[in-house]
Amino acid sequence: MDSAPEVVAVGHAIVDVLAPSEDSLVASFGLEKGTMTLVDEDQAEKIYASLGPATEASGGSAANTAACLASLGASVVFVGKVGDDGLGRVFIHDIRAAGVRFEVEPARGGPGTGRCLVMVTPDAEKTMCTNLGVGALLSPDDVDVDAIGAATVVYIEGYLCGKPETDPAVERAVSVARDRGTLVAFSGSDPSWVDLKRSALDALLDRVDILFANDAEACGLAGVDNVEAALTTLSRRCPTVAVTLGSRGSVVATGSQVVSVPAASVSRVVDTTGAGDSFAAGFLYGVVRDLGPEASARLGALAAAEIVSHLGARPLTRLSDLIGGERLGGS
Amino acid sequence: MDSAPEVVAVGHAIVDVLAPSEDSLVASFGLEKGTMTLVDEDQAEKIYASLGPATEASGGSAANTAACLASLGASVVFVGKVGDDGLGRVFIHDIRAAGVRFEVEPARGGPGTGRCLVMVTPDAEKTMCTNLGVGALLSPDDVDVDAIGAATVVYIEGYLCGKPETDPAVERAVSVARDRGTLVAFSGSDPSWVDLKRSALDALLDRVDILFANDAEACGLAGVDNVEAALTTLSRRCPTVAVTLGSRGSVVATGSQVVSVPAASVSRVVDTTGAGDSFAAGFLYGVVRDLGPEASARLGALAAAEIVSHLGARPLTRLSDLIGGERLGGS
Repeated sequence: MDSAPEVVAVGHAIVDVLAPSEDSLVASFGLEKGTMTLVDEDQAEKIYASLGPATEASGGSAANTAACLASLGASVVFVGKVGDDGLGRVFIHDIRAAGVRFEVEPARGGPGTGRCLVMVTPDAEKTMCTNLGVGALLSPDDVDVDAIGAATVVYIEGYLCGKPETDPAVERAVSVARDRGTLVAFSGSDPSWVDLKRSALDALLDRVDILFANDAEACGLAGVDNVEAALTTLSRRCPTVAVTLGSRGSVVATGSQVVSVPAASVSRVVDTTGAGDSFAAGFLYGVVRDLGPEASARLGALAAAEIVSHLGARPLTRLSDLIGGERLGGS
Repeated sequence: MDSAPEVVAVGHAIVDVLAPSEDSLVASFGLEKGTMTLVDEDQAEKIYASLGPATEASGGSAANTAACLASLGASVVFVGKVGDDGLGRVFIHDIRAAGVRFEVEPARGGPGTGRCLVMVTPDAEKTMCTNLGVGALLSPDDVDVDAIGAATVVYIEGYLCGKPETDPAVERAVSVARDRGTLVAFSGSDPSWVDLKRSALDALLDRVDILFANDAEACGLAGVDNVEAALTTLSRRCPTVAVTLGSRGSVVATGSQVVSVPAASVSRVVDTTGAGDSFAAGFLYGVVRDLGPEASARLGALAAAEIVSHLGARPLTRLSDLIGGERLGGS
């Protein structure tokens, strides 16, 4: 049961509240479409009251990646903090049912399980307001150092970085990984988060082996205004840099080598929530199975195509069934 | 705010836990596909632990009908009981956000809000295990007699009927409606429920103006083995009998007149949860707008087509946008 996992994912344990919404509603809160804003419990209640009918589904960036990795067939541990409440039980059920090992004890008392109000506009774009709840209190003691030491990759959500409450947990995960030869993968998480926490994220970059970012996050991290320049800058610091470009696919730099991979076809894009998380999962699956950057990016594209085809950020079909010959076709 | 509603819907307040499931999982619990089984909290926990990742969404048969009716543009009140807990807050948010008036006070203490574990198999069929929770304690005092008296139709979920806990509430709703000239609409709810509670349901039939049933429920209620005979038998007792036939559409008997209406086209049937509830909503919308049985059944088919095209029993798009010229095309 406790055999070495291939990947340990560390992030916020969150339940998403997905509400199809008009652009005008997003604008009425003064929010910019496609971004994530942190809100406290009172603000979350106020926004929730204005949302239309919603669907609840487990989320959290790195947790989504963990669920997709398990669905692809990788062995995964997730590290994150839930409360001892209804949403916490939903989160635990879903992450374990996805085949992910999850052993962090729920916190008793204090804030409840985090939730993310996700407004999904008709263009399939998502605008998120997150109340992190007890998820923001992930401590170094919660970090499973044995699992990280034994894993091939530890994947850390950028949202954890740059906050006094969770920085010690990030530091512990990264140091253990560096000491034990475990690859460190890291996500930019969100363009506005990158803007807000740039110095903290920057301080971590030289210890990151695999960096995931979308175009805006890559430019923000590199302090430049175009993806090519960002790739050049970032790949001087991280051995692998994977930048997602939405419907234009992705581009991956490994040292001086750069490969572009198109997005996989989707009959209808319904909800882009979790697109980046699932791309990271497909890519990391390729990494742990040693398939090379191009095949890994193709797996990322396939995983993302499944996720954006329906409401919610976790797979509704077994991703391992979708990848078929893709593993054999790896470079 | 408290103007007369067109429809008052009375039923169980339930949050659905929708889990895509293989046929073998359904079989492993000894359940028959397509049916609803009542379970207690312990059984629910045991089954939940075996389910895959799930999505939570407000449900409840009559509550789904109420949400669809509001989405079509009707004014609706829902009567049902939630607990003072997380699922209760989800239910209240969703029913109100759907545009339905809901004023029953949450119960403090006692059992929690009801939930329904819905296994959705690859054929889009649903198999349900319901823990009614506090919803089973709906009392006559919870029934909004003023709203029923002022409405055109009161719609009552069959699941409420034949149980000592909720029969008094059903009796109150029906008597008020009969006294005040409000039409009584009633649903068969589920074939196995009809088998189990046949005498109680039968005792109510002579006071029902509009009966909704699928083919199995209609046969069960009539005590015959084919839909034609069931229609003949049932329409002697209820002025309007609407029988749904899944992908084969519906057939409506009003006295000696019988009309058949095909199902509306759906590009892919994903989840039939709520198909009957949404058909009832479309049909009742036609009733309150006086469109005649054929146009009403066509509206039922359109509403059902939206619902079965995605996971979950509540509309993801505004149904009034879908019906367009259908109102004008009524008979």
